[in-house]
Amino acid sequence: MSDSRPVGIFDSGVGGLTVLREVENALPKEEIVYLGDTARVPYGTKSKETVTKFSVENVEFLMRHNVKLVLVACNTASSLSLEFLKRCFRVPIIGVIEPGARNAVNVTRNRRIGVIGTNATISSGSYEKAVKRISSRMSVYSQKCPLFVPLAEEGWTMGRVTEEIASIYLKPLKVKKVDTLVLGCTHYPLLKEVIAKVMGRSVHLVDSAREVAKEARNILDASGLLNRSSGKKRHRFFVSDQPENFTRIGGRFLKRPMRGVSRIS
Amino acid sequence: MSDSRPVGIFDSGVGGLTVLREVENALPKEEIVYLGDTARVPYGTKSKETVTKFSVENVEFLMRHNVKLVLVACNTASSLSLEFLKRCFRVPIIGVIEPGARNAVNVTRNRRIGVIGTNATISSGSYEKAVKRISSRMSVYSQKCPLFVPLAEEGWTMGRVTEEIASIYLKPLKVKKVDTLVLGCTHYPLLKEVIAKVMGRSVHLVDSAREVAKEARNILDASGLLNRSSGKKRHRFFVSDQPENFTRIGGRFLKRPMRGVSRIS
Repeated sequence: MSDSRPVGIFDSGVGGLTVLREVENALPKEEIVYLGDTARVPYGTKSKETVTKFSVENVEFLMRHNVKLVLVACNTASSLSLEFLKRCFRVPIIGVIEPGARNAVNVTRNRRIGVIGTNATISSGSYEKAVKRISSRMSVYSQKCPLFVPLAEEGWTMGRVTEEIASIYLKPLKVKKVDTLVLGCTHYPLLKEVIAKVMGRSVHLVDSAREVAKEARNILDASGLLNRSSGKKRHRFFVSDQPENFTRIGGRFLKRPMRGVSRIS
Repeated sequence: MSDSRPVGIFDSGVGGLTVLREVENALPKEEIVYLGDTARVPYGTKSKETVTKFSVENVEFLMRHNVKLVLVACNTASSLSLEFLKRCFRVPIIGVIEPGARNAVNVTRNRRIGVIGTNATISSGSYEKAVKRISSRMSVYSQKCPLFVPLAEEGWTMGRVTEEIASIYLKPLKVKKVDTLVLGCTHYPLLKEVIAKVMGRSVHLVDSAREVAKEARNILDASGLLNRSSGKKRHRFFVSDQPENFTRIGGRFLKRPMRGVSRIS
């Protein structure tokens, strides 16, 4: 069996391109439809109801492109809305929380796991719950880092100011001696160097993107939904605000120039 | 003549409450309907088309509350959308750019004016154009400060990190020896102390809120639209995301506890 329908990915903005890159690596034969909700970004400061309303609209858009699976690349939407989305739609829908939590449990040696994310992700306690479901013997310490997203978008990914802000946010996690830190927001991999420097090189940083791509492959494989044809693939990119900024910043995430980004209303 | 219809104010979020406070001072007999578009905040990183679409929807909402005048408290919406709004609606609509520019021209002694604001406000060049319309002999120097809004919302309104960020952003304006600095975003008055410290006490900081309130009074007076009755007034507050955050942060802006904030869809 071969299923040539595309895989759908949505994020509040550009950060989910880190997930797209890993999906390309794990599933090189799949076409991808990517939606970045740039007109309403960020989600991390908004309420569960609002984020869920936006997420439903995003999946509806992807469904109109006949996707066979939806990846919720946004940590906030995964935290607040994934369960509701699963009940609303008939395609498989996976988020970034569960795979990230599973990876953290696998790599920790001292069973002390740190999680950093937006206000909404951390307040939801979603990573903590996911880790405890996998193993009740873990201790999880969480920290909101609301300035990390604007710092990444401003391009201040290194330098003294960013290090100072990171030191302030991460100090409580260092005090708790976590040996594993989940980067619970798709923007944070851009600040990976500063975070690694502040935490110390011995702390393992977990980036959910790779894990979620593996999970997508497993699900497609198990359901007989893999695309086995080897024709030319063309990903499609959609955004809800004008494409210029997305295209420019997206290049940083994808590590290659972007083009052909369309705007939806 | 007396007109008891309310005055409408909208902003992308909570920042416009600084304008509301000045309108209360200048027009104590007027009722106010305030709309904060907290589900789609911030506007400062978004395109002209998107901000204009949101702004039209905001004014339509206020019109359904039978307002007699609309104040666009948001600098980004004033920069990108005011002219379009004026053509679409029949009530008087005023923004914050023109009054702020006029005040800056009045107070500068060396005719060197600095303007700080969001990406969208600064890129639009709206303050520069407004200043030049009033007096062609002025020099205007502009600077985007995209981290100021998240700093203000995070509550980091003072301290070393905020001072360092302010020093980086404001250095080019100090080099140009501006003697007047327009705070071109409703969030920035919360960082006034740090900005004043970095710029030096001799630099005059212009906050558009007071100026726009004066202009509202002039227009209502000239058009015979003032409310002359002295019955009890009750302002109404609406937001597009859940009210809790707005209520909490709004108290900081209004310098009094807020209540009775309603959510719209």
